Amino acid sequence: MSAPTRTTPHTSSRAAVLDVIRAAGTISRVSLVNATGLTGATISTVVRGLIDDGLVQETGRAASTGGKRRVLLQLNPAARYAVGIHLDHADITYVVTDLAGAVVARISRPGAGNAAPEAVVQRMTDEAWALVASADVDRERLLGFGLVFPGPLSANEGMAITPPAMRQWADFPLGHEMRRATGLPVVLDNDATAAALGEHWSGGVDLPPTFAALYMGSGIGAGLIVNGISYRGSSGNTGELGHICLEMDGPECWCGARGCLEVLAGPAAVVAAARADRRLARAAGLSRRDRNPDQSVIPDFAAVSRAARRGDEGALALLERSARYVAVAVRNLANIMDLEAVVLTGPSFAIAGPSYLPAVERELDGMFFARANHTVEMRLSRAAATAPAIGAAAMVLQSELVPLHSGLRLPENLQPSEPPLSPAS
Amino acid sequence: MSAPTRTTPHTSSRAAVLDVIRAAGTISRVSLVNATGLTGATISTVVRGLIDDGLVQETGRAASTGGKRRVLLQLNPAARYAVGIHLDHADITYVVTDLAGAVVARISRPGAGNAAPEAVVQRMTDEAWALVASADVDRERLLGFGLVFPGPLSANEGMAITPPAMRQWADFPLGHEMRRATGLPVVLDNDATAAALGEHWSGGVDLPPTFAALYMGSGIGAGLIVNGISYRGSSGNTGELGHICLEMDGPECWCGARGCLEVLAGPAAVVAAARADRRLARAAGLSRRDRNPDQSVIPDFAAVSRAARRGDEGALALLERSARYVAVAVRNLANIMDLEAVVLTGPSFAIAGPSYLPAVERELDGMFFARANHTVEMRLSRAAATAPAIGAAAMVLQSELVPLHSGLRLPENLQPSEPPLSPAS
Repeated sequence: MSAPTRTTPHTSSRAAVLDVIRAAGTISRVSLVNATGLTGATISTVVRGLIDDGLVQETGRAASTGGKRRVLLQLNPAARYAVGIHLDHADITYVVTDLAGAVVARISRPGAGNAAPEAVVQRMTDEAWALVASADVDRERLLGFGLVFPGPLSANEGMAITPPAMRQWADFPLGHEMRRATGLPVVLDNDATAAALGEHWSGGVDLPPTFAALYMGSGIGAGLIVNGISYRGSSGNTGELGHICLEMDGPECWCGARGCLEVLAGPAAVVAAARADRRLARAAGLSRRDRNPDQSVIPDFAAVSRAARRGDEGALALLERSARYVAVAVRNLANIMDLEAVVLTGPSFAIAGPSYLPAVERELDGMFFARANHTVEMRLSRAAATAPAIGAAAMVLQSELVPLHSGLRLPENLQPSEPPLSPAS
Repeated sequence: MSAPTRTTPHTSSRAAVLDVIRAAGTISRVSLVNATGLTGATISTVVRGLIDDGLVQETGRAASTGGKRRVLLQLNPAARYAVGIHLDHADITYVVTDLAGAVVARISRPGAGNAAPEAVVQRMTDEAWALVASADVDRERLLGFGLVFPGPLSANEGMAITPPAMRQWADFPLGHEMRRATGLPVVLDNDATAAALGEHWSGGVDLPPTFAALYMGSGIGAGLIVNGISYRGSSGNTGELGHICLEMDGPECWCGARGCLEVLAGPAAVVAAARADRRLARAAGLSRRDRNPDQSVIPDFAAVSRAARRGDEGALALLERSARYVAVAVRNLANIMDLEAVVLTGPSFAIAGPSYLPAVERELDGMFFARANHTVEMRLSRAAATAPAIGAAAMVLQSELVPLHSGLRLPENLQPSEPPLSPAS
């Protein structure tokens, strides 16, 4: 028989200690020994190094429990910063966060549109540095850039199969080019995975440590957080919920398969159905011509959503239908992952979330198989538009904070030496 | 903002060291320091305790690298044993494994049938102790029992929503009763999750550390292994693949939802369709009367499978149709979990696997979204009938070997004090 392989912790004591201090808020060295299982001598050495590097500071003493009052340690949030960038067709969103994940600066700029990837990389670099400067953050304290975008990651650090509006990005070596332009480490990921991490770190909605973020921008994806850490699968492409099949012989999707959630119920499907209904198209103020695949679908989706809010029955029916499919996809996700909660996030839920949430909850009620044990809580994000950028910054911070054990794969490309993103198997 | 919570390692050094020794085969204390990140002093203390308890033994010295030749350590497989029991309607399968997971004894006995759960618990206890005695295993060295069965786990340690043939088990406090009958710790889980762990430990098929086992017995489920550890979700009910929806308005399933994989394509659906075709029913030798819900469907499914192997076109078409749905479910699972491999296992794939494997592979080819990065390898188990029992024993061993950190939840009920299986959230 073969012995099961397991990644074992090594050179991770420092990251483990730092993460425990971050999660605890304030903690003594003795409590760190209890929390980590490391010896007092190891804790002493590691903490001295963290203080020398400015990552941790002493902050007074705990209340006496009889003996000597213990010195408390806490994270120094201003010790390090990270930039998070959410690259999309319609918008590019930037945040700068400190070591604790608090947003110290944010800005939104025009999206990639149809510009050449090389030009967009240069613009993102300029806009990010300008934001860092405006926040008065010392470049020396910047750990790196997190950059997230639609579509799956490829082994050469770009988007492998791009959605229609971003075809020119296919196989563009985005990680390499961003690293060259910024001179700093760059972590890549897809927007849905980052959005989930952003929801977890931003804490705007009460979420358990294991949940999924259902992300709807132009397309649909899901980010999976297991005990506070992104579940990344074998190639960093988990949660491709937009391309699970809900109708075996359904319509063909741009990805090449049939009956995908996205082609049945995504924003483009809603807009196409609205445009096919001439009365609704006029009432919602949709553009006459068919959607140009180079244009973002989000403005037209917003128009349909506004019509629904005005009580237009045709628009309401289209969103209800979309919500039914979304609910079935959530059911499938919850039955596979045994989730406690799902948060609706991303630009399209920022627009239409209030129309979706009750419909999804209604459909989901009673159809979740593990319902005898627990329900799946549905929540609408309060940071739906910025969650992916916050998550992008958090990925950079986690690479400093989270020990590289734990059976969950972390981004492997946070090194200036540019290894492949994820080895193709 | 809220600080992300993370389970931190504590009192886990012993388990971590033991697991590293197990995975390594043989290893020196110096290599243990490098592999675990613990100090030399800690390793020295932990190893002394493991040797004193008989779990680890010294086994000669490594080749010299210039200095003193290092003493090598290895697991003592005979130090501890575990019993794995796979409880099903048609059969009950028992294995005894040593600390390394090797099967030292196995036996199959009649299934639960329609007997009262209390009587079955007593019989399982008697049959398990008889197997332990026949293997000449000292009861003192038995860590406990792993017991796996169809259907989701409930918070009161039984099957919450039972499949039709096991209705009398609903809400029976199985964990409690088995603990009382055996006087030892008992770990519960569903058969699909255990089958995945069994595939991983038995090593009969070459599998990467992250994969899914698609289990087909009377029903369909999936077990998920992430870096060698079972992914257990929020209530131990992951991988309910039989109840993901593949047709929103499809036929009603016994679970109460519509269009589930199981009602569309499971063994009972195949048998029902075969029985509806009078020529095929006669050719396959199916019983005339409609299936009694108290009877196992597996013998009739085997009859259809034999007809297909004889080239009966009607039987072939039914299995092809089932395989198409199974392929779509695998696609959905792979798109959500980003899997590298899926192994077909369980009694029904032991019977019909060779008919399914090519059909599933054909359907899956080209429809996996992350295909630009990697394919999903499909494999047919070589231990499809015993994988759940081996996995049940492995769950007991893992509770000794795997550190309780890692962001992945382990069974929480391996204590004689009978805490709730998993707190309802």
